Amino acid sequence: MGQTDITGKKPLVGIIMGSDSDWKVMKDAADFFKLFHIPYECTIVSAHRTPKRMMEYATSAHTRGLKVVIAGAGGAAHLPGMIASITPLPVIGVPVKSSNSLDGWDSILSILQMPNGVPVATVALNASKNAAILAMQILGTADDAILQQCIQYKHSLEEEVMKKIEHFTGA
Amino acid sequence: MGQTDITGKKPLVGIIMGSDSDWKVMKDAADFFKLFHIPYECTIVSAHRTPKRMMEYATSAHTRGLKVVIAGAGGAAHLPGMIASITPLPVIGVPVKSSNSLDGWDSILSILQMPNGVPVATVALNASKNAAILAMQILGTADDAILQQCIQYKHSLEEEVMKKIEHFTGA
Amino acid sequence: MGQTDITGKKPLVGIIMGSDSDWKVMKDAADFFKLFHIPYECTIVSAHRTPKRMMEYATSAHTRGLKVVIAGAGGAAHLPGMIASITPLPVIGVPVKSSNSLDGWDSILSILQMPNGVPVATVALNASKNAAILAMQILGTADDAILQQCIQYKHSLEEEVMKKIEHFTGA
Amino acid sequence: MGQTDITGKKPLVGIIMGSDSDWKVMKDAADFFKLFHIPYECTIVSAHRTPKRMMEYATSAHTRGLKVVIAGAGGAAHLPGMIASITPLPVIGVPVKSSNSLDGWDSILSILQMPNGVPVATVALNASKNAAILAMQILGTADDAILQQCIQYKHSLEEEVMKKIEHFTGA
Amino acid sequence: MGQTDITGKKPLVGIIMGSDSDWKVMKDAADFFKLFHIPYECTIVSAHRTPKRMMEYATSAHTRGLKVVIAGAGGAAHLPGMIASITPLPVIGVPVKSSNSLDGWDSILSILQMPNGVPVATVALNASKNAAILAMQILGTADDAILQQCIQYKHSLEEEVMKKIEHFTGA
Amino acid sequence: MGQTDITGKKPLVGIIMGSDSDWKVMKDAADFFKLFHIPYECTIVSAHRTPKRMMEYATSAHTRGLKVVIAGAGGAAHLPGMIASITPLPVIGVPVKSSNSLDGWDSILSILQMPNGVPVATVALNASKNAAILAMQILGTADDAILQQCIQYKHSLEEEVMKKIEHFTGA
Amino acid sequence: MGQTDITGKKPLVGIIMGSDSDWKVMKDAADFFKLFHIPYECTIVSAHRTPKRMMEYATSAHTRGLKVVIAGAGGAAHLPGMIASITPLPVIGVPVKSSNSLDGWDSILSILQMPNGVPVATVALNASKNAAILAMQILGTADDAILQQCIQYKHSLEEEVMKKIEHFTGA
Amino acid sequence: MGQTDITGKKPLVGIIMGSDSDWKVMKDAADFFKLFHIPYECTIVSAHRTPKRMMEYATSAHTRGLKVVIAGAGGAAHLPGMIASITPLPVIGVPVKSSNSLDGWDSILSILQMPNGVPVATVALNASKNAAILAMQILGTADDAILQQCIQYKHSLEEEVMKKIEHFTGA
Repeated sequence: MGQTDITGKKPLVGIIMGSDSDWKVMKDAADFFKLFHIPYECTIVSAHRTPKRMMEYATSAHTRGLKVVIAGAGGAAHLPGMIASITPLPVIGVPVKSSNSLDGWDSILSILQMPNGVPVATVALNASKNAAILAMQILGTADDAILQQCIQYKHSLEEEVMKKIEHFTGA
Repeated sequence: MGQTDITGKKPLVGIIMGSDSDWKVMKDAADFFKLFHIPYECTIVSAHRTPKRMMEYATSAHTRGLKVVIAGAGGAAHLPGMIASITPLPVIGVPVKSSNSLDGWDSILSILQMPNGVPVATVALNASKNAAILAMQILGTADDAILQQCIQYKHSLEEEVMKKIEHFTGA
Repeated sequence: MGQTDITGKKPLVGIIMGSDSDWKVMKDAADFFKLFHIPYECTIVSAHRTPKRMMEYATSAHTRGLKVVIAGAGGAAHLPGMIASITPLPVIGVPVKSSNSLDGWDSILSILQMPNGVPVATVALNASKNAAILAMQILGTADDAILQQCIQYKHSLEEEVMKKIEHFTGA
Repeated sequence: MGQTDITGKKPLVGIIMGSDSDWKVMKDAADFFKLFHIPYECTIVSAHRTPKRMMEYATSAHTRGLKVVIAGAGGAAHLPGMIASITPLPVIGVPVKSSNSLDGWDSILSILQMPNGVPVATVALNASKNAAILAMQILGTADDAILQQCIQYKHSLEEEVMKKIEHFTGA
Repeated sequence: MGQTDITGKKPLVGIIMGSDSDWKVMKDAADFFKLFHIPYECTIVSAHRTPKRMMEYATSAHTRGLKVVIAGAGGAAHLPGMIASITPLPVIGVPVKSSNSLDGWDSILSILQMPNGVPVATVALNASKNAAILAMQILGTADDAILQQCIQYKHSLEEEVMKKIEHFTGA
Repeated sequence: MGQTDITGKKPLVGIIMGSDSDWKVMKDAADFFKLFHIPYECTIVSAHRTPKRMMEYATSAHTRGLKVVIAGAGGAAHLPGMIASITPLPVIGVPVKSSNSLDGWDSILSILQMPNGVPVATVALNASKNAAILAMQILGTADDAILQQCIQYKHSLEEEVMKKIEHFTGA
Repeated sequence: MGQTDITGKKPLVGIIMGSDSDWKVMKDAADFFKLFHIPYECTIVSAHRTPKRMMEYATSAHTRGLKVVIAGAGGAAHLPGMIASITPLPVIGVPVKSSNSLDGWDSILSILQMPNGVPVATVALNASKNAAILAMQILGTADDAILQQCIQYKHSLEEEVMKKIEHFTGA
Repeated sequence: MGQTDITGKKPLVGIIMGSDSDWKVMKDAADFFKLFHIPYECTIVSAHRTPKRMMEYATSAHTRGLKVVIAGAGGAAHLPGMIASITPLPVIGVPVKSSNSLDGWDSILSILQMPNGVPVATVALNASKNAAILAMQILGTADDAILQQCIQYKHSLEEEVMKKIEHFTGA
């Protein structure tokens, strides 16, 4: 169902969002996957406006070869939890601070506070990049090359800070 | 799908809840309907553990003759909003302060902050009795006998206070 | 008492707001009713500055043929609850995020947390459009043509998303 | 309208509460007035269940000789603000942490966040004793004997602490 | 100690604020008093930077003829409560949403949640105009001319809304 | 470093907690793994009292064969985020509502709101069972037998509800 | 002014609290100082009921040889900030979750959110033991023996955890 | 490790921050130290991206002659608490309202709510200047010249207000 198989390879991660207005936040996840050559797909699935499509997406996700689903939504954000209620795959939820939301508190609590039996791996408000990193780490548990990428990525974070320190004069 | 058609008449209101642990809160709605001879049904529908059942309940609700759905849930409470995403009927949401919830804030925000297009008529925390009164008022818009009941009910509230005032000595 | 009977038909829904500054939020409800040919009226009723007018509005609402009242207010938002204390009609409350309010938390809690006996059907912050949809759903419980409109509306929401998906390239 | 004119003198302060369940909190105000021989009356007035009674109470308060009204309420606490919308007297609001309330946040915000034009003098959660002290201070602006009582009361607070210090061994 | 005795008459109300940056909020109170010919004074008193001045202000307030003190402050707003700890006069606290504050929550709680024995009459966030109205109502308990002003003011609020209603077309 | 290799197999998941007082919450995760025959280890690692141990645990986790780390902590809960700063493995954070915590809000925000580059997969307050399910789902991305367990588990959740529905009489 | 000079040595730390009801929380600080032979004094100083005493305490603190003041208070907790407004010494504030307080949020914000120029070193809710540790660390900046105590104390924390780990079986 | 020893003297205070984007907030602390001739150093130390550097910084701080560490961070702000877990020096935490943070609530709670044994002296949101003043006060406990500076500084705050009062016309 995803439109954006950018690598020619079968997507391993599905990025979905409740509305195209979430794209400005969710784009960071897609950009991260491009950079690290993780095949992904990306589309819009609305829990509240396309519930049947949501059911189909969640039901077929693991049969289509996806390993992880990243779902972003704002306000009363039901998409990540509803996907997680159906798929056996790990679902990463990105609370989006939409114009409708109460500074993001509604998005966070609607995604985080799932009942026993149905977890959503929630990341920080608007943190779709972190969702992508977490997905890469999950893929890394099965694929040593990706694990090495995760290790490299951590080094690059450290190096980036060390460079800033060099140029930091405190002035 | 509801088991509790107590009047022999076709139920007009469906009461559903995410878990049987919500019954201690939702029972007030059922008691209210019994008192006012509103035919209702009552069952458990879990958005996260029985998503297909939820879809079926929501899809068939208006075809089975229901006029209003009351849905109670706690924590990341997706049931009322997901029912509302499918049924054309008005859905009343009751945020339940469950043992898992953050003092009820998560339940309230997950039910209240629905996106444009899909409203849930939210009542106060644990206020399933108010959900039932609201349902009676909605039925009253089409049925003058029920409207008269609503008017009578308001009088009874007033009388109850007036009696308390008589016995109140402020001591 | 309403000035805006736009259809020539007797209004079925009354839209009221505490201040003309709420109009920028409440206008969405009126626009929705125009689009769906639901006869409505619209005026200003302030709980705190015109309490007698408020009492009269609430007392006469159902005798004038209204079926639903939508009341929007911000800050210590008493209008929806006070109207609900008098009228036997269902009252939909719209919490408005006014310049005075604490990011809308005061508006939400003042409207939502009504005591037993007097419900207000609360919708999301600033969600006057959802208030209108809910009112249409309530009217639909008595009028099959309106129920069909509700069903059509849900389809249109889905179609709108499906079109966006077609044009979504994730780029 | 008040039943509890305990001194034989015309009451100067009216204590009202939304429900008899608020009496356990509001009693402190009455006890304080007894101690300081401030004539008061005390009764139940519900904004939501006896709105007409509320209007009459507020309309007649200053003509009956009251100088201050103390109003306590919980949840979506509209009583203090609605009284203040009608009476020209100063109204002191006591947010009550009722069993229905969200830890008192709803009570506080519903009373405190009044719009321009209609103030309520809000005191701390459940602080009906402070409401009574504030009322005594207001009466003291017109009556030097009461002002002296206020000064004496402040001294007594200090003395009480000084006595505790004497007996405090930090062990 | 106040610099701004604008009427030639002895001030009845003292307006103080923790910082000159609060003036943009507190000015509304002064403007209201000018309009209603209530003699007032206005100055800066910082609890944290001029504690001795604060003690002196509070100690002398009632001996200098003041009847009410209005104190505005932001953040950890100690000024209203500290003034109230010393003066026997009623103190009205205005929580100011300063640039330092947590959306005003800190200001509100620091002013509102006073311990037993020392009330502060708290008004809404930034509501210095309401503080002035409340002060006028307090003065009105001793002065019938001012009470009449309060009654007139309520009428003017109503009239103002009625005029807006006339011009409101809902368009 | 973990003491509780219960299966004889090399542990795949490490459960750590900041204090033994967290065990009453974290035990649910261990119980879940026992039930589903997922080899795990379990120990105490305090970010604030044993920082070196924490560094060693995090540094060695993936070299010792762990695939996922579950870290629970309360209050200013730094353990999950600090582990995530070092290990390339996915880290699941369980906010614990300890006696010290502000109803759990501090635990949630300290774990959830990680900066860009270092995600923690946060689950609901006290939801260590959900952490275990999420870990099983992550392991399932590499191991089809475990994926089948995840699918079975979802079915069992549904069946459990269906049984409750049978016995639910709504009385 | 302190009554509890337990060591015969001149006290270096003053522990004060707004009310004797805070002693159950503040006692931990005194116990810590006894254990580590830090000379301290301990008494009650109420910002709101004994403002002059508070001024004197704060004015004389550094002249009497105190190096640090620890001040605990609940609700609208002004004591730490007012002491800090006068003394040049570092002031450590302990927010106390009193029965009056809003779950401690009011205490925390009233102490933490001090304006520019007047810091209070705030510790966690009810964390008077941490206040004592911080005071010891401050004294350690001038006294190498005390610095060594701080280093030893850190080791003891680590050892305590290591012992618990030995006995922890995860069962 | 610090780059900014501006005085030629051995630094007494270390200012660190999680990211160079925090510099706009933390700069106020450096400016304060320059003004008062307190030797300091200033650099970037990220708990999450340079955990080893953080360990080294914290381990060596007191051996390099530092007396106080000021650490600023936003979001899930672990830097101050982690530094405090290692160094025996007093650590002052500055919650930074970063673009990622939930209006600063996450930063505040992550820094303030430290467990027993490991205090962080937390100051107000973004209040790095107050952190510097607090550091000067701590240094003043050992150095009478610095204590005199603290006393002078308090006077200057008072004078500054007194000058503003002179020019304040309330107009």
